[in-house]
Amino acid sequence: MANLPPTHSPLFLGVDGGGTKCRAVLVDSNNTVLGVGEGGPANPYHGVERTYESIMNATDIALRNAGLTPEHKANIVAGLGLAGVHLPSLFQIVNQWDHPYKAQYLTTDLHIACIGAHESDDGAVMVAGTGSCGFSYVNGQALTLGAHGFPCGDKGSGAWLGLSAIQAVLVAEDELGPSTMLSDLVEEQLQARGLMIVDRLSGAKSSDYAKLAPLVFHAAEQGDSVALNIVKDGADYLSRVANKLWATKPPRMSLIGGVAQRMLDWMDADIAARMSAPLSQPEFGAVRFAKTKHAAKPQEIAS
Amino acid sequence: MANLPPTHSPLFLGVDGGGTKCRAVLVDSNNTVLGVGEGGPANPYHGVERTYESIMNATDIALRNAGLTPEHKANIVAGLGLAGVHLPSLFQIVNQWDHPYKAQYLTTDLHIACIGAHESDDGAVMVAGTGSCGFSYVNGQALTLGAHGFPCGDKGSGAWLGLSAIQAVLVAEDELGPSTMLSDLVEEQLQARGLMIVDRLSGAKSSDYAKLAPLVFHAAEQGDSVALNIVKDGADYLSRVANKLWATKPPRMSLIGGVAQRMLDWMDADIAARMSAPLSQPEFGAVRFAKTKHAAKPQEIAS
Repeated sequence: MANLPPTHSPLFLGVDGGGTKCRAVLVDSNNTVLGVGEGGPANPYHGVERTYESIMNATDIALRNAGLTPEHKANIVAGLGLAGVHLPSLFQIVNQWDHPYKAQYLTTDLHIACIGAHESDDGAVMVAGTGSCGFSYVNGQALTLGAHGFPCGDKGSGAWLGLSAIQAVLVAEDELGPSTMLSDLVEEQLQARGLMIVDRLSGAKSSDYAKLAPLVFHAAEQGDSVALNIVKDGADYLSRVANKLWATKPPRMSLIGGVAQRMLDWMDADIAARMSAPLSQPEFGAVRFAKTKHAAKPQEIAS
Repeated sequence: MANLPPTHSPLFLGVDGGGTKCRAVLVDSNNTVLGVGEGGPANPYHGVERTYESIMNATDIALRNAGLTPEHKANIVAGLGLAGVHLPSLFQIVNQWDHPYKAQYLTTDLHIACIGAHESDDGAVMVAGTGSCGFSYVNGQALTLGAHGFPCGDKGSGAWLGLSAIQAVLVAEDELGPSTMLSDLVEEQLQARGLMIVDRLSGAKSSDYAKLAPLVFHAAEQGDSVALNIVKDGADYLSRVANKLWATKPPRMSLIGGVAQRMLDWMDADIAARMSAPLSQPEFGAVRFAKTKHAAKPQEIAS
């Protein structure tokens, strides 16, 4: 890339870390993008060391992409928005990480998604992806709803849709519940029936269940009674989450994540209509978060 | 023990293997108990090598308890009834185990529980313990219902009761569902609230969720609306399983497992009244299974 900054220029890195991958963006003080990188899973709930490794990989790729070397990490002010660190124990661990950056500012993936979506500190976001949750930040007050993880929560998410489908299909196989088109779709996708479905899902992760979500939407759109019950139940939950977030009076709200667009069709029409498209990606929210925090921090006096 | 059999006498071992432990009983050809033993988890769904190790430990303890040495394994005709082997892939693996016995006969934990409960080949059992399932065996025809495992199935089980409670308590914490006595009971037992509950349950197994089941029963008995919905939903499912098993015309049916007694109070009164107490433990059913299978097998001609 042209116009490389000299090594003593400030570099800002935004990292969006989730259960599947992490994305990093490297910018200069004018927010010019210098490089981007992607790493593996970075949800410390599923492994702290793996998270650090994925963040380091994404950082090194972004630096190389910018024509810089790994040594430039020492010039980087990093903002990390990670899944899982809404849990106090994980926040504490990752926040005490012996990181290689000049400075590190840690918050949740939800928080940086919110800042990115609105290019502003205040706003609200809902996520309906592999998991589900809601978040608002208004006048310095944060509210998190859901984010309870799989299988304790995540209602209305892709994983929840998939698990609910499996539960219904297995009950139907026992002739203890209605067998509908959804059964055929699930059996075809898994290439399994009855107990072989359980066999096939041995050790399945939330992302594996989420792969079944499109089948549930497809069946619901065809009027399948079992799928309709599942989708409507999930959409009703998400609508209630949205109502509770609006009560905190955020200026804007966005619904993001892999099943967001399809879930909007099943949510209260009024609520769906009030959702705004996100303005930028979470990793840019992480950059903004890092810059704000770093500017507010007492700086060392240059020698 | 007195009256040890000579080493060339036939020895029969019955093993009941589940997710928490396995129990073994060693008997002679007259069904006199020579020794008993207990080993660790023996559900191959959660680890095949661990299962073999637990079965070996239980066997060695039973042999020692009988005043015999580990070498006597070569004289043992073993009946193994294991959780998990209703899955064809696991049955195949364990059935091909290079075991140290004279002969090994493998079936499910449900099957040996059924044989043991009725001291007969024909009958039906339902399990409401950490997991849930139903099984009948009539005129050589087996029917298995449920046994889908956690979290895909196991409705009405201890784990399902506990997970359902956690889901309800977390929704209540978000003020998106009613907060009742059940919330207080769960928070007190886990010594946690809100997201700390999720933190506390990180990596929780089905048996961890099942530990919360007594709280759900307690709250339901006090008229708690959230707990009542959960318990009634689970009991309704178990009643429907029982009806489907009775349709196969088993001579007797038993309901066994850790939450069986308390669940009976919430099931259809007619169905609860028709349940019979189990006559003997599953490991004795495993002995009977091994003896029947071994007697039916073409024997080597003694040289």
